[in-house]
Amino acid sequence: MPTPDHRRSERRRDFGARVRALRKPLGLSQEQLGQVAGLDRTYIGSVERGERNISLDNIWVLADALGVHPSELF
Amino acid sequence: MPTPDHRRSERRRDFGARVRALRKPLGLSQEQLGQVAGLDRTYIGSVERGERNISLDNIWVLADALGVHPSELF
Repeated sequence: MPTPDHRRSERRRDFGARVRALRKPLGLSQEQLGQVAGLDRTYIGSVERGERNISLDNIWVLADALGVHPSELF
Repeated sequence: MPTPDHRRSERRRDFGARVRALRKPLGLSQEQLGQVAGLDRTYIGSVERGERNISLDNIWVLADALGVHPSELF
């Protein structure tokens, strides 16, 4: 049975994978998405790698920049 | 046009309202939901009032405790 820590990591990685999967077809680099979102390129990269416990506000900012509803990031 | 700050507040309140709307039909108090989720009652209250910039990990914890997918909290 996965530990809570393991599950958290997996869910962060799943979230990041969703962001990446939505960004690529838009033809945007991490840097360009960062510019649209007003977030740093390195932050976008760390979110996509599942390294961030991203907050509600930034989930909305990313969803807006990707042109989706935040529910699509889960 | 709403300011970014105004929009952030509105989205936090919307999220909190969703949590409350899902909690009530389960017949759970904030304290009981907190016990299920392993979160403090006062934290649940502040999320429901839209006072928290809740993080991805806790969004998942709350969704699990409410028996829904996190996408339903948006």
